[in-house]
Amino acid sequence: MKKGSKYGTHRVIEPKGGLPQPALKISNNMEIFNNEILIDVDYLNIDSASFTQLKEEAGGNIEKIKTRIIEIVNERGKMQNPVTGSGGMLIGNVEKIGNNLKDKIDLKVGDKIATLVSLSLTPLRIDKILEIKPEIDRVEIEGKAVLFESGIYVKLPEDMKDTLALAALDVAGAPAQVKKLVKPGDKILILGATGKSGLMCSYMAKKMVGERGVVIGQARNDQRADFLKNTGFCHKVIVANVLDPIDVLNKTIRVNEGDEVDISINCLSIPNTEMSCILPVRDDGIVYFFSMATSFTKAALGAEGVGKDVKMVIGNGYTKGHAQIALEELRESEKLRKIFEEKYV
Amino acid sequence: MKKGSKYGTHRVIEPKGGLPQPALKISNNMEIFNNEILIDVDYLNIDSASFTQLKEEAGGNIEKIKTRIIEIVNERGKMQNPVTGSGGMLIGNVEKIGNNLKDKIDLKVGDKIATLVSLSLTPLRIDKILEIKPEIDRVEIEGKAVLFESGIYVKLPEDMKDTLALAALDVAGAPAQVKKLVKPGDKILILGATGKSGLMCSYMAKKMVGERGVVIGQARNDQRADFLKNTGFCHKVIVANVLDPIDVLNKTIRVNEGDEVDISINCLSIPNTEMSCILPVRDDGIVYFFSMATSFTKAALGAEGVGKDVKMVIGNGYTKGHAQIALEELRESEKLRKIFEEKYV
Repeated sequence: MKKGSKYGTHRVIEPKGGLPQPALKISNNMEIFNNEILIDVDYLNIDSASFTQLKEEAGGNIEKIKTRIIEIVNERGKMQNPVTGSGGMLIGNVEKIGNNLKDKIDLKVGDKIATLVSLSLTPLRIDKILEIKPEIDRVEIEGKAVLFESGIYVKLPEDMKDTLALAALDVAGAPAQVKKLVKPGDKILILGATGKSGLMCSYMAKKMVGERGVVIGQARNDQRADFLKNTGFCHKVIVANVLDPIDVLNKTIRVNEGDEVDISINCLSIPNTEMSCILPVRDDGIVYFFSMATSFTKAALGAEGVGKDVKMVIGNGYTKGHAQIALEELRESEKLRKIFEEKYV
Repeated sequence: MKKGSKYGTHRVIEPKGGLPQPALKISNNMEIFNNEILIDVDYLNIDSASFTQLKEEAGGNIEKIKTRIIEIVNERGKMQNPVTGSGGMLIGNVEKIGNNLKDKIDLKVGDKIATLVSLSLTPLRIDKILEIKPEIDRVEIEGKAVLFESGIYVKLPEDMKDTLALAALDVAGAPAQVKKLVKPGDKILILGATGKSGLMCSYMAKKMVGERGVVIGQARNDQRADFLKNTGFCHKVIVANVLDPIDVLNKTIRVNEGDEVDISINCLSIPNTEMSCILPVRDDGIVYFFSMATSFTKAALGAEGVGKDVKMVIGNGYTKGHAQIALEELRESEKLRKIFEEKYV
């Protein structure tokens, strides 16, 4: 077995010399290198933006979608939608582990795993498409895939349905980062606390701040505020308009005994909410952006404009142990698990 | 005197309830509130994007630019270009200090200051435009401006020309953040080390890492690498293509005894350089983005895609003492001062 690059650059065919994700074509030869893992694939979870595009292009015709998926994978060696650029994830069983990795990782042949790295950079060969379930963006196939040494994955747990696990894994980075970031006694503001990542972050933050700390959850209306209060995941709940930073600031300060908070966490997927996340934080505090709608320049120039000496962090979807941390939350909290089963499965 | 909001929301006329920067119109009544500072303005340094737009709109006619500036300020109460949204900064003398601020700040009436907060949110009244110097985007005026309690400023030093001080103050956030971030013994990579902020960051980083640390500066070609070597601001200099992350990774590791670095700092103004900044950093290391060309999503998804457990920080243009830190560098290093005088004044 040959030794490949940690990042999979040895499989890049075109253009030469880059990383697999931006590459137009990578090798899907299923003879693995000694730091790769071969996966027998059960199904692909196509990214929602990509699947919507495929459906539209095919006029909703399932057979046409199948043909197009096969074409893309034959052309690129990976399931990366040429229009949206996005991929998705896959579920399958470990078929073979490269010699260099065998003693270094917690996987054995036969383990059922989900890859947490995008299909847009994963070598894939489809032998046959068995079924497409358009309502859940799922493509069941016969085929193989390769995971690079840097590729992240999770063993699927036996104590919950795959769909429940995947719903939590989808936002796993957020609660894991909160766990690393938040200290006992901290005062925390969570914007978008009623959403999927917001709920997981609120639950984790409340656990981390302990008895002296406070977690303040923002909801956009009374109905969602009531739902959030009933969870018990936050100490305080505010109803505030995230597009009005002064409204968020005033309401946060009011429930926090007149003070700014130590850390704010943006779990919204709404553009132009940077200042609502920056203003309520004290000097030397931390502003954590998990929202993919965050604008780098609006955050950087916005903080300078109001003279806020805060540390602003770009939410990294990955941190060590993030998958286990997310699954553990569902095991710990029956309430959280029930909400996830009702709303996201 | 009435008490105003720290962020100047009390002067917002339209739309009601927001912050002064996104506002369409703010009050430029020069009767100050008790937490404001009144400035007798010498000149405006119009932001370069804004000035270019004004020149084009006026077909290069200076009188037309004057008329347009007066129109904008009369309409908005501030010099915010309606097309680019940007402002600039101003230089002037302190004329009056609100009662609530008098004992809290290090300013007295008569001090010459530069505002480090954007003109796009600063109440301004222009009585007369004296002269426009289009080659340096400068507009000399008779007029007044107001600084809010949250507004940042710097007293202009007497031991250097205003233009030299302003060139350093323009990027003051970067070296000040480096000073806070870098610890003795750290291994640091600076992308874009030959530019204005790159030079200031390199100089500061070398000072902070001490004898056991290493500062690696990236240059885009041999000529710029020679220039950087001659400054002595970096321990090692690499010539690498910032659009090729693997090239940057390999060259960094080669000069760093086979290891990844602890911290990387992006001082480029080139899009698509996120991965070049992320890949060379060890797990648990820090990636600092000062580049306004940074894409939030490319950084967040990119780090996850390669399974990098790094902390990614949005460069805040402001931190306490940043102006003094930047000016102090010019005083400490004759070489840096000379480069600034030759290239940026």
